[in-house]
Amino acid sequence: MKIGMVGLGKMGLNLSLNLLDHDHTVVGYDSDLTVQEKINHEKFFYRNSLEQFVTDLPSPRVVWLMVPAGEVTESVIQTLSKLLHPGDMIIDGGNSNYKDTLKRSEFLEEKGIYLFDCGTSGGTDGARTGACTMIGGHPDKFKHIEPIFEDVCIENGYLYTGKTGSGHFLKMVHNGIEYGMMQAIGEGFDILHKSEFNYDYEKVAKVWNHGSVIRSWLMELMEQAFSKDANLEDLRGVMNSSGEGKWTVETALDLQTSAPIIALSLMMRYRSQEEDTFSGKVVAALRNEFGGHAVVKQ
Amino acid sequence: MKIGMVGLGKMGLNLSLNLLDHDHTVVGYDSDLTVQEKINHEKFFYRNSLEQFVTDLPSPRVVWLMVPAGEVTESVIQTLSKLLHPGDMIIDGGNSNYKDTLKRSEFLEEKGIYLFDCGTSGGTDGARTGACTMIGGHPDKFKHIEPIFEDVCIENGYLYTGKTGSGHFLKMVHNGIEYGMMQAIGEGFDILHKSEFNYDYEKVAKVWNHGSVIRSWLMELMEQAFSKDANLEDLRGVMNSSGEGKWTVETALDLQTSAPIIALSLMMRYRSQEEDTFSGKVVAALRNEFGGHAVVKQ
Repeated sequence: MKIGMVGLGKMGLNLSLNLLDHDHTVVGYDSDLTVQEKINHEKFFYRNSLEQFVTDLPSPRVVWLMVPAGEVTESVIQTLSKLLHPGDMIIDGGNSNYKDTLKRSEFLEEKGIYLFDCGTSGGTDGARTGACTMIGGHPDKFKHIEPIFEDVCIENGYLYTGKTGSGHFLKMVHNGIEYGMMQAIGEGFDILHKSEFNYDYEKVAKVWNHGSVIRSWLMELMEQAFSKDANLEDLRGVMNSSGEGKWTVETALDLQTSAPIIALSLMMRYRSQEEDTFSGKVVAALRNEFGGHAVVKQ
Repeated sequence: MKIGMVGLGKMGLNLSLNLLDHDHTVVGYDSDLTVQEKINHEKFFYRNSLEQFVTDLPSPRVVWLMVPAGEVTESVIQTLSKLLHPGDMIIDGGNSNYKDTLKRSEFLEEKGIYLFDCGTSGGTDGARTGACTMIGGHPDKFKHIEPIFEDVCIENGYLYTGKTGSGHFLKMVHNGIEYGMMQAIGEGFDILHKSEFNYDYEKVAKVWNHGSVIRSWLMELMEQAFSKDANLEDLRGVMNSSGEGKWTVETALDLQTSAPIIALSLMMRYRSQEEDTFSGKVVAALRNEFGGHAVVKQ
């Protein structure tokens, strides 16, 4: 199939290479002109304008977006809505908020354009050699693009999840679970680290990956991380986040679902981003006021 | 090697069969006489008293305990301490509290008996076909029993963790991590369940196990559970626990380590064991007192 790829960053580039491996033709667009040098393949064609990019695709056009969620995705979709034709299809492979997806789908539907929301997991390696995707959107139109997912995903690694929004929603919850799992792993190693015992964390992660109940890809990644830096001394424990955890918690609140572990995992990330906290100052000040307890001064 | 196995429940029975598969001879003891019928093998010998059991083992004796942690383990170790000889070795394969292990090790050391604390993971299937173990104890004496672990564990599935207590401590923290991971998975599926979308949870668990960041043995077990009961309608969400999570949290407190996710996962298990809560009544009563808000009566 001839597929348009908008966004040739790490994910879009690797997905393009993955598509080329499976004998697809890829027309690529990225606002950064230098990325075109990264792929040299007879079936890859770089275009430096979306107008040209769209012209080169056969009808019905299939345009895969691998651009940052939020404003960039919104802007690309706005532009594409003017260039694409009824019957064309957009796959949003980014981590868009499912509520934005629902709005965009409605807007595109008026123009006869179908939006598929595709949650993509497995990192950049997965994009290159076999991704894990969860895709929502029009069930009949999905059949047209399904062969693409059969090709670029690991075996059993894609799922049509139902109506529009269900793909991005599922990916959002996946990431929420990821937050909790990661925080639990972090706390466990912290307890080992402060204990009276002298563990080799790489070996611990390794043995836990061989037959234990908590064996997992995340634990494999820890084995890899500890192999590079036995005590993670080169790092600071600042845990950033990119939105999906927050949306999972917001959704849990909207649905009045008790999800304290995912919520607290997110809050622990926020805590890690501050060297000191105002809440800490407040508690220290109160202890000082009522009991004369010592405080630590700046 | 000729090994003594005390406790022939699910774990001890499967470990015995595993040892027999690897050409070891097993002398088995269990207070329940009926278990002897479960193994019929030329290299398996059941003994109905610990006195007889010990007599049948060559010096230095290697006795593996697979009995419930706590009182039963304590009682068996007290009895064995009178029957074993200097140089003999006990492997405690149960989920003993590492503090008990330290006390027992000291007590046994006075009699010249070596205690190895062996955390065992991987469930009953692991015990049968390849366990994951983490073993603390005397480093030189460990060499004598190491071939046993090479045989009964999955490849790379055992680790000598250092001094006495380090094996049970590591297993305890492993279970603490497990609590957090499981609660995160539970909350994620709960959000899916309350959402506007209509997911097939078995298919969700399956796709997440193929290439996603949260692929794990726990998610494989969820796929299996949902395949048997698509919406878990046959279950109540009562989450019991057996001590290791509580000890992990107690240890985090002793070490002044911030481990809120593991702690809260434990508390959510306690919450699940109550149909109603006194804390809920207190909050409802207060809302009623200050704002006249409606309460739900018995």
